[in-house]
Parts: sequence; structure tokens; C-alpha cells
Amino acid sequence: ALDHPYSLRAGTTPAELLKKLNEQRDIIALMEVKMKEMKSTIRQLRVTEAELREEVRERDRMLGVQGVRRRGAG
Amino acid sequence: ALDHPYSLRAGTTPAELLKKLNEQRDIIALMEVKMKEMKSTIRQLRVTEAELREEVRERDRMLGVQGVRRRGAG
Repeated sequence: ALDHPYSLRAGTTPAELLKKLNEQRDIIALMEVKMKEMKSTIRQLRVTEAELREEVRERDRMLGVQGVRRRGAG
Repeated sequence: ALDHPYSLRAGTTPAELLKKLNEQRDIIALMEVKMKEMKSTIRQLRVTEAELREEVRERDRMLGVQGVRRRGAG
């Protein structure tokens, strides 16, 4: 459901279409770089989250939060 | 420094250029949606990170990590 697709207007030359095409291509290339950066940021934040959760668990153990019933073995 | 920009080849019609232009436009629209999602994910992960850091600090306080010298007032 994309509105306003490009359409041929009177006076639109192939050279103009080509210029626009290359502009779009550059935009896509920049967006790809940006997305790659964001993916890397997300990956790093997930690693940090896992580490912090482990730190919290570790401190909980140190605090002897043992009122919690251990149901399973181990 | 982008390689292979589009160029006019013999037989490339304005209709073909237009088709390509609209294809790229759709790609850009999809990428924008994806980037918006990733931005939202990053924002959420940063909130979670801040919360977890606070949890760690809180437990450190509970553990009485007071060997740390307090230099400032407060």
C-alpha cells in the first residue's frame, strides 16, 4: 500500500530517471550501512543485558536469597 | 565511492527505468520500516540496561559494599 509511485510525466527524460535511480541507489547503500550499525548495536546490547542479568543473579546468590523453594534437583 | 552506478544502456526504455525506480522506492520503504523497528528495539534495550544496572547497584548496597570510600558528601 504505497502511495504515489513514480509515473511518467510529460517531459521526464531518461537522463532524469537515471539520475533519480542513482540517487535512490545511494540512499539504499547508506541505509544498509546504518542498518548494519544498528544490528551490531543490538547484538552488543543483548550481550550486555545477559551479563547484567548474570550479575544480578550472582548478587542474589550472595545475598542468600534462599527463601525461594528449590523444586528441582541440582 | 559506490561502484556500478546505473547507466544508460542501449535499449533501456523509460518504462524500464521507471519500473526499477519504483522497485527501489519499495525497497527504501521496507528498509525504513525495518530501521524504525530496530530503533525501537535499541531504545527498549537501553531502558532494560539502565534498569538492570540499577538492580545491580541496589543489591550492592544491600550487600553492604561499604568498603568503598565515600569521598563526597551525601
